[in-house]
Amino acid sequence: MANWFSRAPRRIELPRLRSRNEELATKKVDLEEFAPGVLDFLGRSAYVQLTQFECLSRAISGAPSTAAKTAIGRVAEISLGRHRMLVDEIAKAGRNPAEVMEPSAADVDAFQRTTLSTDWFETVMSCYLTAGFLDDFFARLALGLPADVAKRIAGIFTGDSGEAVLADILQGAIEADPRLASRLAMWGRRLVGDTMLVARSSLRYSEDHTSDEARIEPVFTELIAAHTRRMDALGLTA
Amino acid sequence: MANWFSRAPRRIELPRLRSRNEELATKKVDLEEFAPGVLDFLGRSAYVQLTQFECLSRAISGAPSTAAKTAIGRVAEISLGRHRMLVDEIAKAGRNPAEVMEPSAADVDAFQRTTLSTDWFETVMSCYLTAGFLDDFFARLALGLPADVAKRIAGIFTGDSGEAVLADILQGAIEADPRLASRLAMWGRRLVGDTMLVARSSLRYSEDHTSDEARIEPVFTELIAAHTRRMDALGLTA
Repeated sequence: MANWFSRAPRRIELPRLRSRNEELATKKVDLEEFAPGVLDFLGRSAYVQLTQFECLSRAISGAPSTAAKTAIGRVAEISLGRHRMLVDEIAKAGRNPAEVMEPSAADVDAFQRTTLSTDWFETVMSCYLTAGFLDDFFARLALGLPADVAKRIAGIFTGDSGEAVLADILQGAIEADPRLASRLAMWGRRLVGDTMLVARSSLRYSEDHTSDEARIEPVFTELIAAHTRRMDALGLTA
Repeated sequence: MANWFSRAPRRIELPRLRSRNEELATKKVDLEEFAPGVLDFLGRSAYVQLTQFECLSRAISGAPSTAAKTAIGRVAEISLGRHRMLVDEIAKAGRNPAEVMEPSAADVDAFQRTTLSTDWFETVMSCYLTAGFLDDFFARLALGLPADVAKRIAGIFTGDSGEAVLADILQGAIEADPRLASRLAMWGRRLVGDTMLVARSSLRYSEDHTSDEARIEPVFTELIAAHTRRMDALGLTA
């Protein structure tokens, strides 16, 4: 097991996280009717993925040890790979990826700023929680895209995201300094609100907002339950 | 062709860069006798690769356009992939990658600090020139490793590094604002000195330093010639 904070070897138990695939398979997907057009979906999710990578790259630059740097490097590589696959889908559709991502830049950048922290552990927490939530969200939403692309695009957001590496680092940090727990719990609670907002603004609403909200609600309840499990994995209360 | 700095479409010619493979094949490799042990080589080059990725991630975060962000993302993914391959070689040898990289951290970090700039174009220039130089250097040095690993490890540093993407961005910037040329030329001249130092400190010298220097000299002359071609590709004097 890696040793994130010092040279003294220490053993950290990996948290028991269910894989995204497992969770997605066992739950009714009901965001489908809110899926935007394919290009809107790809542009937004590709730009979100890019900012998730930027969060990881800040975590790498600020890491307190070479072990943490190289471990988060693997997560960042997966994140960049997903971004590239989304960008390739846009190019395959004959469009310029940067142009298709551009309309999302302002509000996703604004969201990203709310996840910034000068504290390294909070930065890792931001990467862990927002990527977890938004990957789940986009995987579900993608299933509402046209049948010929839905599964392929949803597949980009499932599979190993490297989440366990981040959970492992955070769990080790809390174990080493239990005072971190309350601060990270508060940070997690702050993040989930903004993350939900950026997810919601990716939906295509009908004209009947009240009825939309009622139908969206149960899905967000499930996404929040998954968020709670991510907090639980660190021994934190959501 | 991508449009790095604004929304107005503009066509940029790709610079004609020779591939690293081509250069390596046509030149006598004579750093072999200075190759350190396999683990020392892997630890140092893996850590250097990590800092090259960090340079690219700063270039992504500071990029003035989504087009530049996503294009540099591909370069960063290649860089992280190379880092991972080097780390995997260390793990394959039964060692802990972070421990093997650790002895290089202090002086490679010090080198990295000399490549930092608050100016985005200078940051991209740092990524372009130092990665170009050090990839060439490590590819040559790797050929002096034991025969069973030499070619495989040298191969990690050859092939497409995404260098043309960075050259393209810099060329476009200089074309759009010719006053950048002299500033970036000066920055390039500053970088090459520190880059040579970090390369030299990766060599295993014999007890006869004077004789070593005489034998190393022609190789560095060739590495500097390649650096000069990278500057030429931007229309800059080295």
